[in-house]
Amino acid sequence: MDQHTAILLIHCPDHPGIISSVSEFIFNNNGNIITLEQHVEEFEKHFFMRVEWDLENFAIPSDKIKEFFNTLVAKKFKMEFTLCFNDFVPRVALFVSKYSHCFFDILSRYESKEWKIEIPVIISNHDKFRYVAERYKIPFHHIPITKATKAEAEAKEIQLLQEHKVDLVVLARYMQILTTDFINHYPNQIINIHHSSLPAFAGAKPYESAYKRGVKLVGATAHYVTEDLDAGPIIAQEVRPVTHREGLADLKRTGKNTEKFVLAQAIWLHLNHKILSYKNKTVIFS
Amino acid sequence: MDQHTAILLIHCPDHPGIISSVSEFIFNNNGNIITLEQHVEEFEKHFFMRVEWDLENFAIPSDKIKEFFNTLVAKKFKMEFTLCFNDFVPRVALFVSKYSHCFFDILSRYESKEWKIEIPVIISNHDKFRYVAERYKIPFHHIPITKATKAEAEAKEIQLLQEHKVDLVVLARYMQILTTDFINHYPNQIINIHHSSLPAFAGAKPYESAYKRGVKLVGATAHYVTEDLDAGPIIAQEVRPVTHREGLADLKRTGKNTEKFVLAQAIWLHLNHKILSYKNKTVIFS
Amino acid sequence: MDQHTAILLIHCPDHPGIISSVSEFIFNNNGNIITLEQHVEEFEKHFFMRVEWDLENFAIPSDKIKEFFNTLVAKKFKMEFTLCFNDFVPRVALFVSKYSHCFFDILSRYESKEWKIEIPVIISNHDKFRYVAERYKIPFHHIPITKATKAEAEAKEIQLLQEHKVDLVVLARYMQILTTDFINHYPNQIINIHHSSLPAFAGAKPYESAYKRGVKLVGATAHYVTEDLDAGPIIAQEVRPVTHREGLADLKRTGKNTEKFVLAQAIWLHLNHKILSYKNKTVIFS
Amino acid sequence: MDQHTAILLIHCPDHPGIISSVSEFIFNNNGNIITLEQHVEEFEKHFFMRVEWDLENFAIPSDKIKEFFNTLVAKKFKMEFTLCFNDFVPRVALFVSKYSHCFFDILSRYESKEWKIEIPVIISNHDKFRYVAERYKIPFHHIPITKATKAEAEAKEIQLLQEHKVDLVVLARYMQILTTDFINHYPNQIINIHHSSLPAFAGAKPYESAYKRGVKLVGATAHYVTEDLDAGPIIAQEVRPVTHREGLADLKRTGKNTEKFVLAQAIWLHLNHKILSYKNKTVIFS
Repeated sequence: MDQHTAILLIHCPDHPGIISSVSEFIFNNNGNIITLEQHVEEFEKHFFMRVEWDLENFAIPSDKIKEFFNTLVAKKFKMEFTLCFNDFVPRVALFVSKYSHCFFDILSRYESKEWKIEIPVIISNHDKFRYVAERYKIPFHHIPITKATKAEAEAKEIQLLQEHKVDLVVLARYMQILTTDFINHYPNQIINIHHSSLPAFAGAKPYESAYKRGVKLVGATAHYVTEDLDAGPIIAQEVRPVTHREGLADLKRTGKNTEKFVLAQAIWLHLNHKILSYKNKTVIFS
Repeated sequence: MDQHTAILLIHCPDHPGIISSVSEFIFNNNGNIITLEQHVEEFEKHFFMRVEWDLENFAIPSDKIKEFFNTLVAKKFKMEFTLCFNDFVPRVALFVSKYSHCFFDILSRYESKEWKIEIPVIISNHDKFRYVAERYKIPFHHIPITKATKAEAEAKEIQLLQEHKVDLVVLARYMQILTTDFINHYPNQIINIHHSSLPAFAGAKPYESAYKRGVKLVGATAHYVTEDLDAGPIIAQEVRPVTHREGLADLKRTGKNTEKFVLAQAIWLHLNHKILSYKNKTVIFS
Repeated sequence: MDQHTAILLIHCPDHPGIISSVSEFIFNNNGNIITLEQHVEEFEKHFFMRVEWDLENFAIPSDKIKEFFNTLVAKKFKMEFTLCFNDFVPRVALFVSKYSHCFFDILSRYESKEWKIEIPVIISNHDKFRYVAERYKIPFHHIPITKATKAEAEAKEIQLLQEHKVDLVVLARYMQILTTDFINHYPNQIINIHHSSLPAFAGAKPYESAYKRGVKLVGATAHYVTEDLDAGPIIAQEVRPVTHREGLADLKRTGKNTEKFVLAQAIWLHLNHKILSYKNKTVIFS
Repeated sequence: MDQHTAILLIHCPDHPGIISSVSEFIFNNNGNIITLEQHVEEFEKHFFMRVEWDLENFAIPSDKIKEFFNTLVAKKFKMEFTLCFNDFVPRVALFVSKYSHCFFDILSRYESKEWKIEIPVIISNHDKFRYVAERYKIPFHHIPITKATKAEAEAKEIQLLQEHKVDLVVLARYMQILTTDFINHYPNQIINIHHSSLPAFAGAKPYESAYKRGVKLVGATAHYVTEDLDAGPIIAQEVRPVTHREGLADLKRTGKNTEKFVLAQAIWLHLNHKILSYKNKTVIFS
């Protein structure tokens, strides 16, 4: 696949003629649409669209597409839009605490080049996985956090993310709550994995709560982090059946498999520009 | 299958020798165990067991098994137990309001003899489905309920259930909350279907809440009714994936399929004496 | 929903400008697109599309849309297309043998108006369900089939389907193989449910084969009937986990639940014009 | 969990008194049963059982249990049985070719001590992953295989497995077919992952076949290797839904996630002595 493509993620109030205008913009400038997907939210009548086209003979230079699209199409429909390119290699920062399963899984996918990403920095509130980062020659920063040092620690983290030009932050079972200030630096750019099928068992110790309640399904939820704890836009979630025979350790073991898969799925969707987040919900293009 | 079997559902504090005592009791009296399944809850060390055996050459007459088992085995281990027979045909009352999907599904299974049950009575707070009951020649009682008439209405319902010697009450999307008094008449004998994957979206309008929250899974939960609304022991639950493309009507349509299946699954488990309910959780034998 | 809409199902070799041409055709004639979904098959570069638009202010009269679209758009791209209207009420014939689960489920959905269909005729090679058809006041035809009478029997069936102006034939566990001649009368208009996850266990007795092989999943497949037995385009399929504890009767019981659901799902997709069948595969629009 | 337990896996023709005899054997010698699970295959009336008990006060020394059980119980019922201990640490050999996803996943679980195993040797027909083995300080043997060298290569492999006292061989997407001779050295001790939901798409290139057939589910199957290719006893299998939108690369990507999970699940079941393999099927205890 050395096809060079552009991707537009668009949303705006619904209005006749949007698809026609966008597809003409591409076609008239010699672009060939590879996929176009749209959605209208039924209650608010809000319009969402993802369109990807081949840039090979596209008449508008890549660095001018944004300006041209804005002037010729977006303004008319009051669109908010993001333009991405399929050959962009995003820079992903990993945050981890003491659980390895998501962390190892992400590094395995990175090592096998399943994902086209750079991992310029790993940050942890523990020193446990320094040796792993060294194995991959990725800078590792041990930044312990206490109530007293939280502001200072986060400032240091943000500085690191900025130095390393990070595009996406992945909380791979990072057991610290981020402040609103931190989150505001990376809106819709921080993905967390919660070890329950939200909104069930939000907060800490979801497996313990699930065991106590005697549910027959346990799951995991990947979501963008917002200032409302465990209430950000859900990207992906999945459950597995469990029975009374599964003790607490079994729930956790089963859950870990789901967490790994769901977090990886969410990262893949984000990396492939398939997510539009709007008012605490997501539109996931296929 | 004209094999005649007995089924014991047992629970007690865990103690060495329980399985040995029970299996000896059966073997020594010429019973052949068909299935034996046990479980020990890890924190409370509480023991659960289901054992089914062939009565063909069993030395103790069926109407004496309870007494003999109690004297010879149960007392020693402080067991609580229920004795059932596989040829017992339970009498099931259906409660329904205005949604037909679970109601029709149950009647279809009844009509096709998928389940060996009698349905001696159908009760509804609306008159809508009287014609359906008549089709099956099942007595139908329209008992409207308002705040003012609730006590009186429930008294009438309980009287009907008693007259018809009902063993199990199935709330097939019955849109009324039962009082504690009603529930106490039928402990672990009232099965409800809730249209969410509890504990998520307990209460009314779960699909609306699920749509609003933007979850990627919708489901249903069958549970025994207890005085805590939507918090009774969970028997079965299942979810299906949904996307942003599913509007509210689609969530409901998808959900109805799950409700039908989950409620039928729970009824089947109950009818086959596969459920032990203990302290707001269930042990589901296989 | 009293919105009146038109739906175009299109396929043709991929070519730049298709989406633009179609969306312009709609927009320029005052149609508002409700959903547009497209797909390009990666190896053959074949293009598929479903577009639905509001007809309220559409400039072209409904009975002229086909001609205009053909002249103005379809010819240019060598499209094959089908035009449907959301208020069309399809006429569905049910074929059934002796299993009731799919049959009852479809009738329940029909009775509850979950689907907007007419069922003008029920055909069976047994007389068993005549009383059910009578309950719904649907003409029932008992057409027994032997090797010797097959041609004659099918001729009678086709005549009935034509008399009743049937748009869709549903084989609700109809245990007869249709001849190529019969099938050719209703291309992509006959839906069958096979009681396995095809291509596994094609042919007769799939549950027996699944039990023998010791698989851990059993399922069902709904597909359009083609002259290759059990090899037609797959519309929907689903499996459920099973264990060694499930005997043959349990596999069948579990399977029936899946069959019901999968067949209903396939019918719903067909009724909503969401299926494009091409070269033994389906594109299922969402 | 420093509880020290013994596990018996038993099978024999069904006969009254088996459970009673086994549980008495344990109880009379001061063992406390932790879990007991049995199964009778319905057609052959063959009996299967797994029982685990606490050895703390068990009267028979661990190295004598086998002899005593054989003499006192097994002979009487013509049992075949295996005795295992929960503190035994099995030695697992990994075979890998060029796909890393299962290989990395297993090593991650090993590194995080999710499984109590030793990995004394990694064998590959390519040199690609030598650096990974070195990272974990596990001996790596590159044994290329051609038709001409197969016998010799396998002889070398068997020698390595014997030298390293290997208990379980895991084929983590090892792209070579083992000879019957090799397989006979490790009956029910070689686990393979096949990238389809067997028996569908047995043999090579299952994703290509699945894509071509247009199935709506893709999956993976972990099974013991027998001399019949892809026909050994199935341990675990799972599928995921796919649509026409998933191209071949997507099927493979989705499939890899399933392969990883299913293989890990099968290994876990084997390591926990939860599998009884009998006549090409498995009984999986819970």
